[in-house]
Amino acid sequence: MKKFLNLPDEFVTESVTGFVQAHPALVTMHRSPLFVRRRTAKRKGVAVISGGGSGHEPLDLGFVGVGMLDAACPGALFTAPTPGQIVAAAQQVARDDGVVLIVKNYAGDLKAFELARDMLDMPVQWVLVDDDVSGFAAHLGAGRRGVAGTVIVEKIVGAAAERGLPLDTCKRLGDRANQATATMGVALTACAVPGVAATFEIGADQIEMGVGLHGEPGVSRVPFMAADAIVDALLEPIVADLQLAAGQGVLLVVNGLGGTPLAELYLLQAAARAALGRRGVEVRRVAVGNFATALETAGASLTVCVLDDELLDLWDAPVRTATWRW
Amino acid sequence: MKKFLNLPDEFVTESVTGFVQAHPALVTMHRSPLFVRRRTAKRKGVAVISGGGSGHEPLDLGFVGVGMLDAACPGALFTAPTPGQIVAAAQQVARDDGVVLIVKNYAGDLKAFELARDMLDMPVQWVLVDDDVSGFAAHLGAGRRGVAGTVIVEKIVGAAAERGLPLDTCKRLGDRANQATATMGVALTACAVPGVAATFEIGADQIEMGVGLHGEPGVSRVPFMAADAIVDALLEPIVADLQLAAGQGVLLVVNGLGGTPLAELYLLQAAARAALGRRGVEVRRVAVGNFATALETAGASLTVCVLDDELLDLWDAPVRTATWRW
Repeated sequence: MKKFLNLPDEFVTESVTGFVQAHPALVTMHRSPLFVRRRTAKRKGVAVISGGGSGHEPLDLGFVGVGMLDAACPGALFTAPTPGQIVAAAQQVARDDGVVLIVKNYAGDLKAFELARDMLDMPVQWVLVDDDVSGFAAHLGAGRRGVAGTVIVEKIVGAAAERGLPLDTCKRLGDRANQATATMGVALTACAVPGVAATFEIGADQIEMGVGLHGEPGVSRVPFMAADAIVDALLEPIVADLQLAAGQGVLLVVNGLGGTPLAELYLLQAAARAALGRRGVEVRRVAVGNFATALETAGASLTVCVLDDELLDLWDAPVRTATWRW
Repeated sequence: MKKFLNLPDEFVTESVTGFVQAHPALVTMHRSPLFVRRRTAKRKGVAVISGGGSGHEPLDLGFVGVGMLDAACPGALFTAPTPGQIVAAAQQVARDDGVVLIVKNYAGDLKAFELARDMLDMPVQWVLVDDDVSGFAAHLGAGRRGVAGTVIVEKIVGAAAERGLPLDTCKRLGDRANQATATMGVALTACAVPGVAATFEIGADQIEMGVGLHGEPGVSRVPFMAADAIVDALLEPIVADLQLAAGQGVLLVVNGLGGTPLAELYLLQAAARAALGRRGVEVRRVAVGNFATALETAGASLTVCVLDDELLDLWDAPVRTATWRW
């Protein structure tokens, strides 16, 4: 797989360096251990930190800024950050009001954040993101994966913290956002970690339903279909999980996995909006783009979050990051 | 090539519909003939319109909004818009102060915009964008192609128009921005128009230098290289064209062609900044992302614009579009 890189081992550092150089007003970088934080730290209030393997950009770096994350800790490609990264980030950006750690439900991330939590000498709360409703590895007992819904949880918790809400409230809102959120993904192609072969093989007339963010095979391989049919298949487990019913208002996130053109994502948005509309569900807010990616995977995920008034208000709150500004 | 679409003939309309639905505060859509315009029209001043084939998203739709375009006219995939689209857009968004048409240098676009200009009963000026310095088809006499530099010209002219500058001044600034801008692209993969085979074949260890935005073969095929070497090769014709010299300050745009992960684009940004720095050229502003794409092509282009104070001031002027907000 051809990629723009120099040495594979230097990829993450060089990429994060480029990211920080490109957004000097927003973020700054700590090199060792590696983390990215807001250029101008909060004066008071709860800090919000996330992190995870690299290869999912803009997640999480692109969401560091006012109204969202105080710091992000990028691990190696598809590899959790070290506890040392998380501890160093928290010590630099968090204060007496404490820190919320937003953790995607993967074994490596859980382990790293657990160790970091135990090492931190400050009030710590924890929001676990597990929005994937594909049923992937359900029989293994590890629970659902955290995927694109992470950006919603980060936005909600970040907005709550920016308003000065206390630690327990930020945690409660994050948990509520996660519980209100469901995601289902599909891949048209696989991806490859530099220096490693493609993560799976897929035929020219097949698509992989239920993929996550690491190029892992999904839950079923089905024949290639029209976009409307793919959207129906993606929405089915989401609707079941959230028990979506007529009259509800939702936030819809159409997320590209990295290699899909924006024009196709917008087409999926129109299809998903129409399909939800046929169920009487109103799309009240929407975000379309590459937010939580899996390297160069061609594919997309649909995320639905059932918005109550409080979550809607926090979603709408101002944000100023590299990826989102409103 | 697997793509998220229903019927190929409906692709553009469905995608544009999804785009407009996703940005209701910014844009609205005229269905027949098809164009996208600002939701809230300028009260007075020069209108700025662009357009071109679809498949380059977010170009040009994503740049409709305050401080940039008043309207954009999307053609079919890789096909110029019709004169009727351009005329209808101008009649709806332009006033007595006239309109600047921003035209990429392709035969189809030129023809459509020329016909539209002749049909418009208002003052019209014209900025031709031809920033591609690859030497592609130079022997054919059609001149250089308009590629990612288009977004810079649209930003400069849009900012000038938003300030109420007169038509001739907007035109002059657009021409100056174009003359100060040079772009060179490279593809790692080809792309395919729906229903059509891939536009060219490329080996697993080859890259295509000097590609444009239509999946056309470039000017040379070379062995795959490290990112730093690719950046040097891309910058060489740019430096020569702009006669870049130590002490100059530039705007750098690192543009993804559609299928390249953001992390790689940021890595290219770091490499390009370092390479320019070694020549004594300072990167004063930067934009990194997918701005002018060629469907799902994996690849990137580097664009350098030599900023004088006036262009810098217009680049920094506020903008509020789907793609750029500052």
